[in-house]
Amino acid sequence: MRKAVVLVSGGLDSATTLAIARAEGFSCYAISFDYGQRQRAELDAAVRVTAAQGVAEHRLIPIDLTAFGGSALTDDDIAVPVHSAAEPDTQSNEPLAAGSAIPVTYVPARNTVFLALSLAYAEVLGAQDIFIGVNAVDYSGYPDCRPEFIEAFTTLANLATKAGVEGAHCEIHTPLIELSKAAIIQRGIALGVDYGSTVSCYQPTAEGAACGACDSCRLRLQGFAAAGVSDPTRYV
Amino acid sequence: MRKAVVLVSGGLDSATTLAIARAEGFSCYAISFDYGQRQRAELDAAVRVTAAQGVAEHRLIPIDLTAFGGSALTDDDIAVPVHSAAEPDTQSNEPLAAGSAIPVTYVPARNTVFLALSLAYAEVLGAQDIFIGVNAVDYSGYPDCRPEFIEAFTTLANLATKAGVEGAHCEIHTPLIELSKAAIIQRGIALGVDYGSTVSCYQPTAEGAACGACDSCRLRLQGFAAAGVSDPTRYV
Repeated sequence: MRKAVVLVSGGLDSATTLAIARAEGFSCYAISFDYGQRQRAELDAAVRVTAAQGVAEHRLIPIDLTAFGGSALTDDDIAVPVHSAAEPDTQSNEPLAAGSAIPVTYVPARNTVFLALSLAYAEVLGAQDIFIGVNAVDYSGYPDCRPEFIEAFTTLANLATKAGVEGAHCEIHTPLIELSKAAIIQRGIALGVDYGSTVSCYQPTAEGAACGACDSCRLRLQGFAAAGVSDPTRYV
Repeated sequence: MRKAVVLVSGGLDSATTLAIARAEGFSCYAISFDYGQRQRAELDAAVRVTAAQGVAEHRLIPIDLTAFGGSALTDDDIAVPVHSAAEPDTQSNEPLAAGSAIPVTYVPARNTVFLALSLAYAEVLGAQDIFIGVNAVDYSGYPDCRPEFIEAFTTLANLATKAGVEGAHCEIHTPLIELSKAAIIQRGIALGVDYGSTVSCYQPTAEGAACGACDSCRLRLQGFAAAGVSDPTRYV
């Protein structure tokens, strides 16, 4: 079996991505990051997801992105924006700065850092495949979720490593990138993913209940509604 | 003054790079990585170098690359190759695997990880300039020191970040990339760099004395000899 590194955050998208990698026949090496995120319940969810689906190994890598700050997810001084039910159903729209469409929940260079560390793991494993559940349809407008970012990282990966120099081709798999949230959920349900064990909320309670009001909760709720599937998440 | 992030390892190259960034008028934000390297004396050297030259800030980021292993610099089970004085003076030639020209001191994806974290730091600072002392002339044959790697990272950086999306241009400065080790040393001397405070050795003693026999020591010794400058390093 070919080995693949799979980024598992504990959220809906990465749980689906792991199921797809397994369905494609890869022996999966999961990697999660303890980056000082507000939503610590995510990491417990990552452990549940990898245990439920089965992986060859699960690495939890500490990398303190709070040292840099600059995001509502890693800096206690920046609040996670919430939306009232009455608010128009627009895409995420809390700017980091005037004129920016990128929300304050964006963590500077997060996916670049996560993919770089996943590449290190893949290189040591001798794996040439990395799966990441980025999505450019129902997403929060983060620059590092776009197809052109993934293409640029693939180019980099093949220049950065011993394997690339020796002619091996590293591939970054993004099976969700063009799917709607509803389509992701339908795909996951078909593959037997238990979404009850995942956490999407940016600010869950200590008991793991989701707020239902942050951008991530809203995308999740809309996705389940559009998929015609009941959302097993516990909301406050 | 424009802000720049400067990667400072504590070695000769990065000390010179910092001096060049300062001479170009940047306000320098130094970043060093505690990645579990064998040569801990490097980090003390990084503190000495930034203190001696003066920086706006110096961040030491812990990122445990020993979790992945795969290199003589991060894995105690892999020995640092040494060369006898009688050995022909070839470039580094300890293969990771048969057929590979990449030495066992290569740390998987190290510069990708370091640049990714530097990019996060730059993004939070609002800096668009990153300086890294990679060198593709008198170097150890690492894939992530080549100009094409740096070009690919620059492309990535401009897609990965808020600044890139908003039209700012991130530049990765590599002032040493085409210089010989001797030319680097001459440049540093002209800028007043105190090389006595730097550490290049892959396996210095606890007191910070260099072995004189590893690849990095050999490149340094040859560089000082070719530059016609006496090497202030303390060797065992």
